[in-house]
Amino acid sequence: MNDDILRRIADTIEERRAAGDASASYVAKLQAKGLDAMLKKVGEEATEFVMAAKDGDRDKLVYEAADLWFHTLLALADFGLRPEAVLTELARREGLSGLEEFASRSKE
Amino acid sequence: MNDDILRRIADTIEERRAAGDASASYVAKLQAKGLDAMLKKVGEEATEFVMAAKDGDRDKLVYEAADLWFHTLLALADFGLRPEAVLTELARREGLSGLEEFASRSKE
Amino acid sequence: MNDDILRRIADTIEERRAAGDASASYVAKLQAKGLDAMLKKVGEEATEFVMAAKDGDRDKLVYEAADLWFHTLLALADFGLRPEAVLTELARREGLSGLEEFASRSKE
Amino acid sequence: MNDDILRRIADTIEERRAAGDASASYVAKLQAKGLDAMLKKVGEEATEFVMAAKDGDRDKLVYEAADLWFHTLLALADFGLRPEAVLTELARREGLSGLEEFASRSKE
Repeated sequence: MNDDILRRIADTIEERRAAGDASASYVAKLQAKGLDAMLKKVGEEATEFVMAAKDGDRDKLVYEAADLWFHTLLALADFGLRPEAVLTELARREGLSGLEEFASRSKE
Repeated sequence: MNDDILRRIADTIEERRAAGDASASYVAKLQAKGLDAMLKKVGEEATEFVMAAKDGDRDKLVYEAADLWFHTLLALADFGLRPEAVLTELARREGLSGLEEFASRSKE
Repeated sequence: MNDDILRRIADTIEERRAAGDASASYVAKLQAKGLDAMLKKVGEEATEFVMAAKDGDRDKLVYEAADLWFHTLLALADFGLRPEAVLTELARREGLSGLEEFASRSKE
Repeated sequence: MNDDILRRIADTIEERRAAGDASASYVAKLQAKGLDAMLKKVGEEATEFVMAAKDGDRDKLVYEAADLWFHTLLALADFGLRPEAVLTELARREGLSGLEEFASRSKE
């Protein structure tokens, strides 16, 4: 059911970017403000995710994760990148090494 | 192809958490360090995502997005939460309002 | 000249908090919103500091550093803490070890 | 007593940068790693500050504030900037408007 939701979100982001009516959509509004505004939101939403976790508030945590992922998708779209690229990178790590790539990098 | 990658990653995270051999896996190691260590990584990876975007480095941006999403999955797993919950929340917003929920919230 | 600026800022923060007229001052407004709102700003301003550095924009970097420090002062004030405590901690590290405490901690 | 601690810290940072022996000092080590490594620490320390505040741990909060300020000083030094510039900017805002500049900017 949820399988393609990231794709659908990305499609909607692209449509809104193309439509470009900043008065009508949040996506177009952030696009009009530029990349820095999107990145600022990524920093802000990461902080809110951390705070929700510290509160032990599971509903808020899911909500903030959605916010955080959504704003990373917006920033990726600004570079013409889609969630499939991120999923492929995650699959590559999982496939190669069962996530052990994270372990090796953590020793850097 | 990538459809179920988030689920597979989450499955692997759960297996590694259950196995709990901190010497053997990055996941078990971070779990042993506790939630704060995971959240610290979320803050760190969000910052690296922002820096990759400012560098205009598309490959690094995808890489850092994967890192950021992965560490949010780790923190979610610490609460027994799975990516499906985040995808459902994203689907809900998309379904309800074509992402307009973000716009309404931004006026708060 | 600047010697006491952190103290003066902290004094002003305390006065504004005590006055508590949220319609009149930014400090009282953030105080009314609560600690989470201040912490969210810390995360946001840290991100803006990072972006200014990546832009190589020296004026903006100083500006964002002022924003970041100011919002940490606001959060500290929420706990009845003043900048003197931070300066004392910095002095302790400097005095003890010429900043080498940072080095030892980085090996953790 | 603490009046000049930020200056003294900045002096020490400059000496360590000039000495440049990465094996001997944390400052020289981070300088050798480059600006991104310093900025990553700023993001990380901001997150730790937020977590300490959520824990209500006053000692840790002061400690993390010192860490955060110290790493902003390191990044500023990478641009040849000193804490006096940040203090002057804070003094300017305080003098001009009793911190009301923050209020006006928050409406943007």
